[in-house]
Amino acid sequence: MPVMQSPPGPRTVIDGREYLYFGGTAYLGLQRHPEVIRAACEAAERYGIGSATSRTGYGDTPPTLDVERQAACFLGAEAALYFASGYQGGHILVSAGRGLFDAVFVDELSHYCVLEAARLSGLPFFPFQHADPEDLRAALGANLKPGQRPLVMSDGVFSALGHIAPVAEYCRVLRHYAGAALVIDDAHGIGVLGEHGRGTTEHSGMPDPINLGLSADEFSEPPALLVYGTCSKALGGFGGIIPGSQRFIAQLKQTHYYAGASAPPVPAAAATGRALEILQADPAIRLRLHENVRAARAGLRRLGLTVDDSPVPIVCLRIGSADRMRRIHEELLDRGILVPYMAAYSGLGPEGALRLAVFADHSGEMIEQLLDALARLL
Amino acid sequence: MPVMQSPPGPRTVIDGREYLYFGGTAYLGLQRHPEVIRAACEAAERYGIGSATSRTGYGDTPPTLDVERQAACFLGAEAALYFASGYQGGHILVSAGRGLFDAVFVDELSHYCVLEAARLSGLPFFPFQHADPEDLRAALGANLKPGQRPLVMSDGVFSALGHIAPVAEYCRVLRHYAGAALVIDDAHGIGVLGEHGRGTTEHSGMPDPINLGLSADEFSEPPALLVYGTCSKALGGFGGIIPGSQRFIAQLKQTHYYAGASAPPVPAAAATGRALEILQADPAIRLRLHENVRAARAGLRRLGLTVDDSPVPIVCLRIGSADRMRRIHEELLDRGILVPYMAAYSGLGPEGALRLAVFADHSGEMIEQLLDALARLL
Repeated sequence: MPVMQSPPGPRTVIDGREYLYFGGTAYLGLQRHPEVIRAACEAAERYGIGSATSRTGYGDTPPTLDVERQAACFLGAEAALYFASGYQGGHILVSAGRGLFDAVFVDELSHYCVLEAARLSGLPFFPFQHADPEDLRAALGANLKPGQRPLVMSDGVFSALGHIAPVAEYCRVLRHYAGAALVIDDAHGIGVLGEHGRGTTEHSGMPDPINLGLSADEFSEPPALLVYGTCSKALGGFGGIIPGSQRFIAQLKQTHYYAGASAPPVPAAAATGRALEILQADPAIRLRLHENVRAARAGLRRLGLTVDDSPVPIVCLRIGSADRMRRIHEELLDRGILVPYMAAYSGLGPEGALRLAVFADHSGEMIEQLLDALARLL
Repeated sequence: MPVMQSPPGPRTVIDGREYLYFGGTAYLGLQRHPEVIRAACEAAERYGIGSATSRTGYGDTPPTLDVERQAACFLGAEAALYFASGYQGGHILVSAGRGLFDAVFVDELSHYCVLEAARLSGLPFFPFQHADPEDLRAALGANLKPGQRPLVMSDGVFSALGHIAPVAEYCRVLRHYAGAALVIDDAHGIGVLGEHGRGTTEHSGMPDPINLGLSADEFSEPPALLVYGTCSKALGGFGGIIPGSQRFIAQLKQTHYYAGASAPPVPAAAATGRALEILQADPAIRLRLHENVRAARAGLRRLGLTVDDSPVPIVCLRIGSADRMRRIHEELLDRGILVPYMAAYSGLGPEGALRLAVFADHSGEMIEQLLDALARLL
């Protein structure tokens, strides 16, 4: 496997060579922000690497609590739960919702961790066609008895395809199912999409606040809309985050993840808290990302590629056969430009795809350099 | 919730007051070791907070690879897999073993993450009585048809009770089941138990190497013995670790955890790698822990408490009613000594327990101070 020998950024060193890098998920460049790194180091010096105990057993540290305050503020919620890995967000929600649902319906191309959380529910499992509200409607109709409560799960932004889940349409379909919940893994949406960077639900015009509870009945029409995210991508830190009402977060703290897991590592928590602070103080970082995404997508269209006008910084390029894309990938590498070729991933099909990621800190010239190189190769 | 405002250690600051601390899992004091902290900071400055991509997508960094080399060496294995959270070790093994087993048998007092991994298997689920090989034998006999392959799961060291699982006896019971596997979550054993600190299996006299594969049939008699651990307790860092043969680790890298999850955060990885290095260079740290554990357990027995002569640094004290233990806990606090009272946890029963943790860096005087205070309160 190749080894990354610098922070991820527009210029990234891999196996000893610096590339103009368009890979991964460091969309806002915060993983290498000097203040984020300094926060991690200062916290490690002050509090050590970790509290070495669970959050119910004296394990809370100031950096963990700060992430929760900052994340709640950033996401427009009363409170938030921070935990060691974004992979576990769906698991936590499914654990908290045990007994509340009768069947689980999952976008067939959802991330592995979503599928795993769905499997963990132990409920009858029904995949539905990718990003297709009509297929969801049909699946619900075919598989639920009257009064049964569906749990529906999907990525917000799909990590390889770059698609945005039609969350508003899912909500319209689910309005007719009392006790329904829609769980969105917004790993690639939070920090990126929406006016305040709150992610897929904000982008989709869903009313704030989200994550009021596992069951919608008492406060609004169904479905209960539940979102979780990660801090390791746009947010520049590490760990998982679930925003929500005070009451809902208190409920999540009853799951075994709170009493039974070590608190997140101190340097990752401190980095995450500082990155959230920076993002709130400087919304221009997100605006630069949006400009770069627009420029890159427009440029790719000028090359004759089929690329839509989405605000998502992931552009999934399918250019002919696997062989051809591998060749483009390698010829770009020769020119010092890295656009990952993914041979296999959810929804990519047998030929795979070039997965291009745009960053806030790519300069206009860097994007032009990529487009020029691609123009020559196509 | 109380907040820890210093690294965990013999003197730990909680809510503004420094306590003589006997809580949590920082058994070897590595979370606050200056070299461990320096390693975390230097790596963050060099590589950023994380590579922001999966390990198959250019996300490997030198600190991650170093953890795997160091952990393999420390645990006497050819290789190791390092991942973001020790909570996921059982999940990874269960995912890799899909289709290889017919039913799962779990020590009824296993940690939440073990029970969750067992549930994730989707197999018929049979709890057996805590640490009881005869009950396991009976459960296997009663629930398996001829030729069926059991997956058996347990903690190695139980986090609140401090019991050691009878691993050798389980292996003897499972010898008669072709295709059987025994999975041990050794979160509290690795770094502590056994001549080289390799954990519960080494302590139990199991032959090295462990973790050769998911199915034992091809290379030895059943069961396949599979161990995973965490780096956030004795090892002073963060994340999960599975040692194993080259072949076995390659097999685990086929699971979705390798391609589908972000690589562990850089500072946690660097801290873990340095802590493993220190432990190997200085076995005296572990010897000091063992001496302290012996001294503390002997002293507690002198006070008339029922405490066995185990090498486990967790001493579960049940002294009368919940009220009485809560009072002892509070009176110790008044004297500046913190021994956590756990009201509810796997196996503690309705009264809960005082969970006393002994560290390598407690001095003899500190242990005497605790014993003196307890003597006055009992």
